[in-house]
Amino acid sequence: MQSDTVQKYSHQYWMYEALGFAKNHYKSEVPVCAIVVKENKLISCGLNLTEDLNDSTAHAEIIAIREASKTLSNWRLNNCILYCTLEPCSMCMGAILNSRIPKFVFGAYDQIAGACGSRLNLAYELEKEKQIEIIGGVCELECAELLKDFFINKRLTI
Amino acid sequence: MQSDTVQKYSHQYWMYEALGFAKNHYKSEVPVCAIVVKENKLISCGLNLTEDLNDSTAHAEIIAIREASKTLSNWRLNNCILYCTLEPCSMCMGAILNSRIPKFVFGAYDQIAGACGSRLNLAYELEKEKQIEIIGGVCELECAELLKDFFINKRLTI
Repeated sequence: MQSDTVQKYSHQYWMYEALGFAKNHYKSEVPVCAIVVKENKLISCGLNLTEDLNDSTAHAEIIAIREASKTLSNWRLNNCILYCTLEPCSMCMGAILNSRIPKFVFGAYDQIAGACGSRLNLAYELEKEKQIEIIGGVCELECAELLKDFFINKRLTI
Repeated sequence: MQSDTVQKYSHQYWMYEALGFAKNHYKSEVPVCAIVVKENKLISCGLNLTEDLNDSTAHAEIIAIREASKTLSNWRLNNCILYCTLEPCSMCMGAILNSRIPKFVFGAYDQIAGACGSRLNLAYELEKEKQIEIIGGVCELECAELLKDFFINKRLTI
C-alpha cells in the first residue's frame, strides 16, 4: 500500500495504514477509517459501521476514540494523534474535542458535512483552536479516490 | 417527582421522568439524563457515564440514541422525541442530527458548551433547522437546580 518513499511513522505513513484498513472494510459501508496513535504505536482502529451496527453514532472516529480510551484506561487521550481518512462531521469533531486529543490529521475534505473548515469550523466556533492542532489533506487524493470508487460502485449495483 | 398538574405525556411529563432518572444516578457523575420516547412510550434512557465507563463519548444523549436504535432495530429514529435535562454539547447535537430525530426537547441551558443556541447553533450552522424542531427550557429551573446542587456538593467534598 505504502510508497517506499514514505518515512516511517510520518503522517503519511499512518494515513496509509488507515487507508489500508478502510480498503479492506466490508463493501456495503462507506469506507472511512480512523486510528489512534500514541508514541508511534497503533492504539486503536475504528471503521464506519453505521449500517452494520444499526447505530448512527458508529462513525470511525467515535469507535477509534472509544477503543483507545478502553486500551489506555483513560478517556483523556493526551499525547495521542487521531488520523482519519475523511474530514469529520460535527458529531465526530465534537467527540475529538471532548477526548482532549491534541493533534488530529485527516485525509479527504468533506464539503457536505466537514466540521474542520469545509462546512463549519467547530474548533474555531468553540474557541478551542489553540487546544488542538489540525492538519487536513494528508494523502488527500488517495482518500478521496477510495470514497469516489465506493459511491461509483454503489450506483452501478443499485 | 411530578406535580399533579402536569399533563400525562406532555413535554413536562417526560422531562420529569428524565429528571427522576438523573437524580437517582450515581453521585460522582454529572447528573444528566436523556430519554427517547416514541408514540408515548419510553424507548431508551441514557445517563452521563463518562467517568464510570472511561469514555468521553458516553454522554447521556449518545447512550440514549444507541439504545433506542438497538431497541427499534433502526438507526433512523423517525417519529421519536429525544428529551434531555441539559442542552447538548456539539458532539451530542451532531449525534441528534445524524440520528434523524425530528423533535428534541431540553431542560437547562448550557452557556459553556450548549450547541442549541447558547454557545453555537449547530442545526442552524448546518442548515438543518427545518429538519428538527428544538424546544429548550422545559422544566428549566428544576434541571438547572439539579446540576447546581451536584457541583456545590462536589466542591464541598473535595
